[in-house]
Amino acid sequence: MQVSRSLPSDQGSATELLNYFVSVRAKTLDLCSSLEVEDFGVQPMADASPPKWHLAHTTWFFEAFLLKVFKENFQPFHESFGYLFNSYYIRVGQPFPRSDRGNLSRPTVREIMDYRSETDGKVIDLITDLGRVDQETRQEILSVLRVGTEHEQQHQELLITDLKYNFGNNPLYPAYRADKVEHLIEDPLEQDYEFHEGGLFELGAGDDGFAFDNERPKHRTYIEPFLISNKTVTNREFLQFIEDDGYKRHEFWLSEGWALLQQKRLETHPLYWRNIEGVWFEYRLDGLFPLALELPVTHISAYEAMAFANWSQARLPTEAEWELASAKRVIAGNFLEKGLFHPKQPSLGEANFFGNSWEWTSSAYSQYPGFRPLDGALGEYNGKFMSSQLVLRGGSCLTPERHIRRTYRNFFYPPDQWQFTGLRLAKDI
Amino acid sequence: MQVSRSLPSDQGSATELLNYFVSVRAKTLDLCSSLEVEDFGVQPMADASPPKWHLAHTTWFFEAFLLKVFKENFQPFHESFGYLFNSYYIRVGQPFPRSDRGNLSRPTVREIMDYRSETDGKVIDLITDLGRVDQETRQEILSVLRVGTEHEQQHQELLITDLKYNFGNNPLYPAYRADKVEHLIEDPLEQDYEFHEGGLFELGAGDDGFAFDNERPKHRTYIEPFLISNKTVTNREFLQFIEDDGYKRHEFWLSEGWALLQQKRLETHPLYWRNIEGVWFEYRLDGLFPLALELPVTHISAYEAMAFANWSQARLPTEAEWELASAKRVIAGNFLEKGLFHPKQPSLGEANFFGNSWEWTSSAYSQYPGFRPLDGALGEYNGKFMSSQLVLRGGSCLTPERHIRRTYRNFFYPPDQWQFTGLRLAKDI
Amino acid sequence: MQVSRSLPSDQGSATELLNYFVSVRAKTLDLCSSLEVEDFGVQPMADASPPKWHLAHTTWFFEAFLLKVFKENFQPFHESFGYLFNSYYIRVGQPFPRSDRGNLSRPTVREIMDYRSETDGKVIDLITDLGRVDQETRQEILSVLRVGTEHEQQHQELLITDLKYNFGNNPLYPAYRADKVEHLIEDPLEQDYEFHEGGLFELGAGDDGFAFDNERPKHRTYIEPFLISNKTVTNREFLQFIEDDGYKRHEFWLSEGWALLQQKRLETHPLYWRNIEGVWFEYRLDGLFPLALELPVTHISAYEAMAFANWSQARLPTEAEWELASAKRVIAGNFLEKGLFHPKQPSLGEANFFGNSWEWTSSAYSQYPGFRPLDGALGEYNGKFMSSQLVLRGGSCLTPERHIRRTYRNFFYPPDQWQFTGLRLAKDI
Amino acid sequence: MQVSRSLPSDQGSATELLNYFVSVRAKTLDLCSSLEVEDFGVQPMADASPPKWHLAHTTWFFEAFLLKVFKENFQPFHESFGYLFNSYYIRVGQPFPRSDRGNLSRPTVREIMDYRSETDGKVIDLITDLGRVDQETRQEILSVLRVGTEHEQQHQELLITDLKYNFGNNPLYPAYRADKVEHLIEDPLEQDYEFHEGGLFELGAGDDGFAFDNERPKHRTYIEPFLISNKTVTNREFLQFIEDDGYKRHEFWLSEGWALLQQKRLETHPLYWRNIEGVWFEYRLDGLFPLALELPVTHISAYEAMAFANWSQARLPTEAEWELASAKRVIAGNFLEKGLFHPKQPSLGEANFFGNSWEWTSSAYSQYPGFRPLDGALGEYNGKFMSSQLVLRGGSCLTPERHIRRTYRNFFYPPDQWQFTGLRLAKDI
Repeated sequence: MQVSRSLPSDQGSATELLNYFVSVRAKTLDLCSSLEVEDFGVQPMADASPPKWHLAHTTWFFEAFLLKVFKENFQPFHESFGYLFNSYYIRVGQPFPRSDRGNLSRPTVREIMDYRSETDGKVIDLITDLGRVDQETRQEILSVLRVGTEHEQQHQELLITDLKYNFGNNPLYPAYRADKVEHLIEDPLEQDYEFHEGGLFELGAGDDGFAFDNERPKHRTYIEPFLISNKTVTNREFLQFIEDDGYKRHEFWLSEGWALLQQKRLETHPLYWRNIEGVWFEYRLDGLFPLALELPVTHISAYEAMAFANWSQARLPTEAEWELASAKRVIAGNFLEKGLFHPKQPSLGEANFFGNSWEWTSSAYSQYPGFRPLDGALGEYNGKFMSSQLVLRGGSCLTPERHIRRTYRNFFYPPDQWQFTGLRLAKDI
Repeated sequence: MQVSRSLPSDQGSATELLNYFVSVRAKTLDLCSSLEVEDFGVQPMADASPPKWHLAHTTWFFEAFLLKVFKENFQPFHESFGYLFNSYYIRVGQPFPRSDRGNLSRPTVREIMDYRSETDGKVIDLITDLGRVDQETRQEILSVLRVGTEHEQQHQELLITDLKYNFGNNPLYPAYRADKVEHLIEDPLEQDYEFHEGGLFELGAGDDGFAFDNERPKHRTYIEPFLISNKTVTNREFLQFIEDDGYKRHEFWLSEGWALLQQKRLETHPLYWRNIEGVWFEYRLDGLFPLALELPVTHISAYEAMAFANWSQARLPTEAEWELASAKRVIAGNFLEKGLFHPKQPSLGEANFFGNSWEWTSSAYSQYPGFRPLDGALGEYNGKFMSSQLVLRGGSCLTPERHIRRTYRNFFYPPDQWQFTGLRLAKDI
Repeated sequence: MQVSRSLPSDQGSATELLNYFVSVRAKTLDLCSSLEVEDFGVQPMADASPPKWHLAHTTWFFEAFLLKVFKENFQPFHESFGYLFNSYYIRVGQPFPRSDRGNLSRPTVREIMDYRSETDGKVIDLITDLGRVDQETRQEILSVLRVGTEHEQQHQELLITDLKYNFGNNPLYPAYRADKVEHLIEDPLEQDYEFHEGGLFELGAGDDGFAFDNERPKHRTYIEPFLISNKTVTNREFLQFIEDDGYKRHEFWLSEGWALLQQKRLETHPLYWRNIEGVWFEYRLDGLFPLALELPVTHISAYEAMAFANWSQARLPTEAEWELASAKRVIAGNFLEKGLFHPKQPSLGEANFFGNSWEWTSSAYSQYPGFRPLDGALGEYNGKFMSSQLVLRGGSCLTPERHIRRTYRNFFYPPDQWQFTGLRLAKDI
Repeated sequence: MQVSRSLPSDQGSATELLNYFVSVRAKTLDLCSSLEVEDFGVQPMADASPPKWHLAHTTWFFEAFLLKVFKENFQPFHESFGYLFNSYYIRVGQPFPRSDRGNLSRPTVREIMDYRSETDGKVIDLITDLGRVDQETRQEILSVLRVGTEHEQQHQELLITDLKYNFGNNPLYPAYRADKVEHLIEDPLEQDYEFHEGGLFELGAGDDGFAFDNERPKHRTYIEPFLISNKTVTNREFLQFIEDDGYKRHEFWLSEGWALLQQKRLETHPLYWRNIEGVWFEYRLDGLFPLALELPVTHISAYEAMAFANWSQARLPTEAEWELASAKRVIAGNFLEKGLFHPKQPSLGEANFFGNSWEWTSSAYSQYPGFRPLDGALGEYNGKFMSSQLVLRGGSCLTPERHIRRTYRNFFYPPDQWQFTGLRLAKDI
């Protein structure tokens, strides 16, 4: 296995990585502290796995790719867990059917918590005992540890977005965060298009620092001059689109999106909006509240994003344009650590390219020139999904701050709405 | 509402009915005592509702049809429960979609237990205070109480069979009953066909005693002479059918069943049989064990039952034949109270028409001549399902003994397997 | 093969049967005389086979069951036709997929006409040369000839009803019969319920004369007293049901029918009704015309028939009631030979139990006591479809008069609408 | 409407364009000369429209976008044809459902031929009478005439590939071309990778000459150095992939493709290969023949193309790489005019980038920077399909030679196989 390509030599010490691991693992449990036992098992659609499954799968990741490979006399915690909690790594075995994850009342939450703590102990033992292995193996072990830790962070976000799909479709609208977030609403940021003159640009991650294989290698790309908005689209703006019959006018829509609308497989509002007796509400992780007009619109499909852009006589940015435009912004914003669990109003002077919601781009998710997937089963991590999806950039209010990068490529299918997904407009000159 | 038709005047006192209610309600909880919190929420297929839902739905039944109608100043326990826990009574409102019952992590089990106990209290109050109402209303109230109590018993069976579908499809094969049932296996009962000369026969329930509307009225039917087996089919016999290529020979199968087999929507063995490296096992509620050959075959569809019968150069009995043949048997057998939770070997001299497994008949579930559904919303209880289903008779190892009758008509679709369903052979002369 | 059971010894001479065969085969072609080449190939839904397929399949029937079995040195007309034109007789081979019949542009209509005439010649040769075979074989041959001739008559009806589904769903609404049928409309027959006292009754076909296996054996059945209407339901009456919100009131509907309505898989009017700017039209085989109110309603599903009956505070008759009530009627009416191709107004004194539309009964299609399917592959003709369907009685305006019998059992699924299907009301006393 | 953007001022005279129109219209009919009437109506899958529909739709295109807009006192040929033969231009009205095109036995082929000739006459009248209109309108008219003529050429290819899907799935395997094509097989061209140093490159069509809106505008793109094969993949090479278990080894497959294989929705060979008793055959438009190993593989999905490329330790080219590599080739090859109707062996020195089969690229079909769809309903021609599809380049053996361009972008979904689709390998340096 050649995972070490994803980790530079200056990655920091084993101790630093172990601390990182320990804090991330703890954070995952912390995110579950307000859940009832019943909440851990529900899978309201195939894409939205139960919290319990996320807790177990991220643990299995360390078992399958770290402990099983590098630990002497490795014994799995449970002989069936390799089958139950493998997501899609066919090279290590046929996984349990994805859409049935919500049907597993056993193992219980308690058993999975035991699985987590026992596995954590084994990982700590392995890392604290690294002196016994050669340098190359040591490097490999730390690389996998890092990948697993990043992987756990991805699942922190998924765990909460999947839970939101559960809660947001329950007629009782339970809140994940007990207290209501009081969003401080300022004067709305005025829409403004920044001019970029384009040119030859280096896209993607270089050899330094951690990055996923799909961000590499750094390569040149030519960008024509373009305009890009200083802010993401707000609920107020999106509501104008709705009130201007945006969902009824085919000329704004891609053919696939229009077909979904005709088949009633796409509703005529963002995923968590609810129209109750003529008044718009939005379900957020702190509960169901009247729609806050100045907050960014979120949970929209790429079809809705593109229809809105067409209605605005604009378009989505490409991922290259986005990466170029983000270059002078600091990577800061409304991330998981803020604890808001919802996008906040974009405000003046803020680096609003990061956090809040993932931003749809018009770029298909495909390989960069010179792309090489990781060796072995981890090669299935990203590469095999490079069809029919679009790239999203910037992270969301559920993304851990340390996890995101300027070159980070998230990817979802155009109809997907259940992640925190918003949009920023761009234009040709 | 005219439910009192289902209850004769000699039904016993309010006290007796109340005691019946209380003991049945307690039994339901007792049946759940070995479950983990996680087990209460799972719906592994649309037909198999979560235990939690059964606990709430049977409670709602008393709320909607008893308390709401007869209690002064009635306040529902929770304003959404009428929507969430209505099964299919459209007259009282649009029900929550059936296939989404497993997506409700809230209300929690604890909240539903509160719902049960608070509702029980209200019912007890109503019944103990009957002196204040007129005789006719009193009769109505007791009738609905009885119907609700019988309804709860039906759901006791469903709760456990639905749970079995959950456990039996979990790769961990959890046991519902912690200790293994040691079945005492005797010499197998020899197959023997009883001769019945037929003739004019009164089918169905008379006016005395409780019965569901679908069992009424008693009416005459003519039965040609027939033979009926003294026993139900065993695993050993069914295995012979399999080994004689029974699932591969179209000539035994109804066209619909054969189509399911070709589409792989019906497996080539009873629902809970598993072939592990060439050895047959059966998942039972006490765990996964090697197939016990002398036990009755159970969890088969009507298509499998009919294919087996054709292979045996026999046929299924009609429901009239079954009812006639059962006439000299006492209603006793392996019911819920035995606590086996699985059919046991049919033995000599035993009234094996009752208990163990529901027996498929060849009779379509349709109305008897002169059928009148209950008035009001309870008219939806049975009548609106009289299409495309078959009648099953005799009760199962999960049916409460007091609940069953000789005239009792259960009904399922021909492909259904998840109930305890077996077969008994019959023949023309 | 033991088909001779279906044919009595007094069936008439070989010459008579051969004349029957020749005239039926000619009638089939005659029914196609107004078709364009393009019309022969279309299969607008899986159930509605292309006319070309019917022409070939009925021919194959004689090849597979008569010529192949009884003709020396038999050579099939084309080696692939046994595969292409077998409908569902698995015993003689795997049939071509039903839903793909409309995808066969080849063989051409001309080739199939050649297939018909060459096969007819071979059949005539076989029958005119019967002197060379023994008496038993002779009897077998004539039996199969008769079954094949009856089979061809069934497909005459299907060919035209399938074609109607094609034409009736084409926005151009082509007419099958070029000239408009001028229905003579009289004063409507007043609804009247005949009383039948019931009792023990012999149902089904005896040993004399031709009948299908599913009509046999004659057996006793007990019928409770009942009322049955003197006429079938008219468009005027059905329109009243619609205008009284019949399709919107769940209380009239079986659960399965209601579900189809909610899913928009059943429209809220009979199959060929069209509401054009507020005016009701009906597509008939002579074209699209304003709805003729005094004609019988036709092309309704069993769900619609039962909902109408419930709305009328009546019910469908059972097949036994229908057969008993028809006993004093002569078998005459609006059959294929009339050339109307549509039901006509039921009129006083007319034996309106026969012809016009098949009448839905409430009886599930199942085997009579003592049922024995034909031996061999022809045993698949009727028996294997005995699940989930209902019996219809009486024939339609497309049924050949000689083909129908008082005991004739047609069968379709409750949602089916594309046959000429109507209803007659019955009531309990 | 501003279609004239797609047509430069030096497009040639009205006479030249009219001659072009007349010859293309005649060619379409010529392509149908070997068809039976029955062949014109069949739609074996939703994507494969009946020949009759293509003949009518291309005619409607001239009616809807040319005659209706520019002809005085325009009367449609038939009032329903605007509904029946609109494909997907919602702006001019709701089209007839695509998947039902094969259900229209009427209008007949003869009627559609009348529709064609009458419409052709009207177009000729309009063009020969152009002196009466102003210069701008004249330009508009000629632009639409040109677009319609190009559109007709696209449908020539589709008509034959759709027909191939019909014939190739008919067990009789009819031939479209009566005589067998004798392919002259030479020594196979040796695989060789050309080196391209990349750099800044102008992609897309400039303002001169006809091009579709999706090829414009010409824009700069940066291409990293790459290798591209001198030839497309042959059947021999693809057979090696199969024999090396290429369809069974998940590591070569995108996740979506692998899922299709597991669900048996993708077969384990190119679309028209047939394995008959261990020998590979291929259905071609001249009939079913043993697989010719030196011919190019064709009718493969993008998933198969990418799996083959991975197995070859190569990849698909991007569309930019393909366009750059094709720059020094003349546009010549095996096009429709050759009359082979099948790819031929790629041979030395030949410009094999064009003709034979469309070549899958790895590039998602999306808009070029600065893309502007045509105005009006013709804006729906290309732009609204820019999601989830891939670009294919180079034309096929069914593409008219005059229709293709170096910048031409065809687009299909990754699973599509029914077009002539092959692949050429590329590599990173």
